[in-house]
Amino acid sequence: MKRIAIDMDEVISAFSLKCLQLFNAEYNSNYTVDHLHGKLLAELDHRFNDKVNVYLAEESFFQGLDVIEGSQDALRRLNEQYEIFIVTAAMEFPASLAPKYQWLKKHFPFLNEKHFVFCGDKSIIRADYLIDDTPLNLENFEGEGLLFSAPHNMNNTSYVRLNNWKEVEQYFKD
Amino acid sequence: MKRIAIDMDEVISAFSLKCLQLFNAEYNSNYTVDHLHGKLLAELDHRFNDKVNVYLAEESFFQGLDVIEGSQDALRRLNEQYEIFIVTAAMEFPASLAPKYQWLKKHFPFLNEKHFVFCGDKSIIRADYLIDDTPLNLENFEGEGLLFSAPHNMNNTSYVRLNNWKEVEQYFKD
Repeated sequence: MKRIAIDMDEVISAFSLKCLQLFNAEYNSNYTVDHLHGKLLAELDHRFNDKVNVYLAEESFFQGLDVIEGSQDALRRLNEQYEIFIVTAAMEFPASLAPKYQWLKKHFPFLNEKHFVFCGDKSIIRADYLIDDTPLNLENFEGEGLLFSAPHNMNNTSYVRLNNWKEVEQYFKD
Repeated sequence: MKRIAIDMDEVISAFSLKCLQLFNAEYNSNYTVDHLHGKLLAELDHRFNDKVNVYLAEESFFQGLDVIEGSQDALRRLNEQYEIFIVTAAMEFPASLAPKYQWLKKHFPFLNEKHFVFCGDKSIIRADYLIDDTPLNLENFEGEGLLFSAPHNMNNTSYVRLNNWKEVEQYFKD
């Protein structure tokens, strides 16, 4: 059975959207996801550099994090034909470890928690495929890297791009 | 640079010793590490099945966990010539995630936290070597598995055995 490693933030959880919402509420700004085209949060507004750490330190951050559209249904189906691992960079924000686990158990109860991996450097991952929104993670990965579209990576042309979970399912059907 | 993945419990942290101490205090028993020869905790006394979960749920469990003799000095030196990753099965005890991270930062401050990996199934690990006390983890590993001696595994003859951290260093010098 082939193995697909799946990133969490921006691929199955709407991480940036939540950061924008909290930031807008605090600074009375009007940033939308469209403003992130080709940019990371800190490139959009340098105050995100500090703010993201503050947001992540709150357990409630993860409790209210939206699921990316279509990811639950697609993973439920893919889980029957592939070994699915969730692989998330969590070591820079240790306070996020337990809340990330709880979020995964709540929204993806059909996945085996022994297939959750919290790491930093994703070059440690042995899998056939990695679906990730961060090009650097794909660069360090030895299997086939697939770029999941997020506003910040829209200018990247180095990887096979999958725009949404319908395209992910189609890719693995072909 | 070759990569060595290092297990945590029983390899760098004296996990079973702490469990035995807590159990002895609670049940007025006199178990020592020697009683674990060829046995897991739950095979020594079935009450450990439930008790280990209770112990791990306490943050203080990790705060007082001893470091395995010689592991700090050896890893400080090996870290100069190898990529060292700490790879620990933590997903069965999610309450242990943050305390495990804090313990590693306290006792191994010279290691890069991006090289900490909290997982369940270690077959996800891509490394040249894995040093682990659990034969099943070595069985699922694609690189070279090295069995670190712990009382419970003393009857296993399937892997290269390293009895202590002096032998680990010697192995990587040869």
